[in-house]
Amino acid sequence: MSSSLVSTFLFPSTNLIITHATFNKTIITNSSLGMNNRMEGINSLAMELLYIQGTAKRSITGVHSRLVSWLPFGSGSFKKIPLNLIRLHLIKMSTDKITFLTNWHATPYHAPLYLAQAKGFFKNEGIKVALLEPNDPSDVTEIIGTEKVDLGFKAMIHTLAAKARNFPVLSIGSLLDEPFTGVVYLKDSGITTDFRTLKGKKIGYVGEFGKIQIDELTSHYGMSPDDYTAIRCGMNVSKAIINREIDAGIGLENVQMVELEEWLASNGRPKDDVQMLRIDELAELGCCCFCSILYIGNEKFISENPDKVRAFMRAVKKATDFVLSEPEKAWAEYVDFKPAMGSALNRKIFERSYAYFSKDLKNVERDWQKVTKYGKRLGVLEDSFVPNYTNEFLTWETEADQADPTGDQKRMVALQKEIASDGGFKRLDVQRVAAVTATA
Amino acid sequence: MSSSLVSTFLFPSTNLIITHATFNKTIITNSSLGMNNRMEGINSLAMELLYIQGTAKRSITGVHSRLVSWLPFGSGSFKKIPLNLIRLHLIKMSTDKITFLTNWHATPYHAPLYLAQAKGFFKNEGIKVALLEPNDPSDVTEIIGTEKVDLGFKAMIHTLAAKARNFPVLSIGSLLDEPFTGVVYLKDSGITTDFRTLKGKKIGYVGEFGKIQIDELTSHYGMSPDDYTAIRCGMNVSKAIINREIDAGIGLENVQMVELEEWLASNGRPKDDVQMLRIDELAELGCCCFCSILYIGNEKFISENPDKVRAFMRAVKKATDFVLSEPEKAWAEYVDFKPAMGSALNRKIFERSYAYFSKDLKNVERDWQKVTKYGKRLGVLEDSFVPNYTNEFLTWETEADQADPTGDQKRMVALQKEIASDGGFKRLDVQRVAAVTATA
Repeated sequence: MSSSLVSTFLFPSTNLIITHATFNKTIITNSSLGMNNRMEGINSLAMELLYIQGTAKRSITGVHSRLVSWLPFGSGSFKKIPLNLIRLHLIKMSTDKITFLTNWHATPYHAPLYLAQAKGFFKNEGIKVALLEPNDPSDVTEIIGTEKVDLGFKAMIHTLAAKARNFPVLSIGSLLDEPFTGVVYLKDSGITTDFRTLKGKKIGYVGEFGKIQIDELTSHYGMSPDDYTAIRCGMNVSKAIINREIDAGIGLENVQMVELEEWLASNGRPKDDVQMLRIDELAELGCCCFCSILYIGNEKFISENPDKVRAFMRAVKKATDFVLSEPEKAWAEYVDFKPAMGSALNRKIFERSYAYFSKDLKNVERDWQKVTKYGKRLGVLEDSFVPNYTNEFLTWETEADQADPTGDQKRMVALQKEIASDGGFKRLDVQRVAAVTATA
Repeated sequence: MSSSLVSTFLFPSTNLIITHATFNKTIITNSSLGMNNRMEGINSLAMELLYIQGTAKRSITGVHSRLVSWLPFGSGSFKKIPLNLIRLHLIKMSTDKITFLTNWHATPYHAPLYLAQAKGFFKNEGIKVALLEPNDPSDVTEIIGTEKVDLGFKAMIHTLAAKARNFPVLSIGSLLDEPFTGVVYLKDSGITTDFRTLKGKKIGYVGEFGKIQIDELTSHYGMSPDDYTAIRCGMNVSKAIINREIDAGIGLENVQMVELEEWLASNGRPKDDVQMLRIDELAELGCCCFCSILYIGNEKFISENPDKVRAFMRAVKKATDFVLSEPEKAWAEYVDFKPAMGSALNRKIFERSYAYFSKDLKNVERDWQKVTKYGKRLGVLEDSFVPNYTNEFLTWETEADQADPTGDQKRMVALQKEIASDGGFKRLDVQRVAAVTATA
């Protein structure tokens, strides 16, 4: 921990008694008070203050208790001095802990992050990381964008939208590539593969973005946003479908579909009673990359701490390698570290997420281009918008582009059906373009 | 959201092309550049920048992409200008969302906080609150103390210790009063009510503080810290006892004891196989107030946002009133908002926490005095330490002091046994000192 100068404030004109003082190593090298020359190289002074106002003694311990001052006396000289001789500066304590906010409560596909912590990979890289979980996914980019939290997870479309709203967030890598995302419904809802069957239905969404996506889709099918009722569900989309509060809701193939399949099975119903209208197909996007889950960060934090960010990415890469090479062991260790993961349902979600993990954590240029275009079509991004991602913190060789992304996606559908039916850990054998290294 | 000036930086001496600009409402009223008069009242300018260095075009989108500048031209005039004519200032986006970090993953005794969100009490008070959960309880005071998070929950002894380490945190109210806390063990561990039976045992603790407490206790019983093995368990103390990784661990009567009782019952064993050596009794403290769970906050945030803090406390008070008057309904609504709560175990933890909820949320002066004294005895607080709490944000009448705190504690033991056996929601009928209003 260390302290740094953050703001100036002048004390009420009164007498001041310093009751307690401790020194720290902060060097004040700049001042906006026109006293630069005098101040340079002087240690800051952290202290408790007791001051006298009229006849009353007042303490500012507990409110502005840590202050820095350049005083006309040396260290350790505690004496009563008139206030007009000094300037007080509030100091801010800082921490070397990196804060990381997940996109969702802890979820099986967060395994690489939690394992990097559990297995000491962050520690081995010389960094400390505090893992935080949100209660409302819509808070994440705002909190990271305002420097309250340093790094986090977020889907691609939200990462773009946040930047467009002036929240300076930047993607520094991928966790999940293109998990299938769409409108999830039960067959008995009356909804079919025809989008227009959503007319008159209640459709749940996570944050505001899902609604923007469905609203845009309606226009392609001769409908308007008035033709359905949108209900914001936060993290409880599956629960709302089960409770019949909504007829359908936006979800992921590897999460909400699995939750509903398991709920159906526990009620003696066939698992394929749950279906998905894939947004990428409805919107003719050609990929589900808008929902790719990314490692993101605050731009200022990233630009001021490039070595820490590189160390962070090395640690999660190592954890990803472990997850991919030893998924059984990785799952057991994740459950041990995070006991809330220890359910049969979560195990199935982990299996269904396995094929989506990005192996090299690369931001895929093709995906960013597609989703930026989609964001412009949605009216969320301006025409001049430049996508906010970089691969410069990935200090290993990344893979070449997919040779046949469309074919891969079809094969992924088949693979995920196989995993849904038989379980286990399987990944696509992706063919890459030879001798081309993808860069951002 | 709004933006504010946080730092100055000069651009490399080169030409600058502004490719995109948006205006916001920030008024710059001060400058350290000696240009105050010229700048006052000018709207700040947020923009994307593309600059030319040598022959290369470079974009700073994605790193320092949002900049404020006072430019020698009006709004909307995008033109190529020599850089030496302008000064660039980095702006920081800010949010009006209050961030709140709990002391633990979501737990039944957090009901008032989550219900204040679920029932719209925060919204009704005109504030927005983002609820965050930690993965390591030891991160909480450091994160709040460094202004990364505004408010949170933390036990009294940790709140004091954080302040003593220069992390400016302040308690602004109580959530749980004096939940019984101690060394939890199973009878077959060989541990008895005699503290000295801990010799040679593995004892789990949450963060570093539990170890300090046990180390201090050993000296009262003719033992040294070398006489036992301390194992840091974070939030997994109960699990470590079940897995026999530890022989005993520090826990709460209303949480870890319940977890172990239910585990015993599910294995056909008597619930009273789990026992607790209460730290307050071993250490002759006269109360379990060191473990009272408090509403805390960053001092700077609190001093700069007193109205927001008052509004926050009014909202959680309203939620507390609801929990106390309609516990069945409150529990159902909490589970609805936070489905992870929906287990028989959590219901029991909620019942066992019910009697501990502070009704008026007051910081109890007597408790703070005792725990401050205890902190000094532990060597964690200096002799001159002034406890860091205030009741000034509680805008309702608080209760008078307990007439017989020691007797109340004995009655609480009996009450909690009754609830453990029969379930339900019961609270002590506490006698108060007449005509005295407790103040901080």
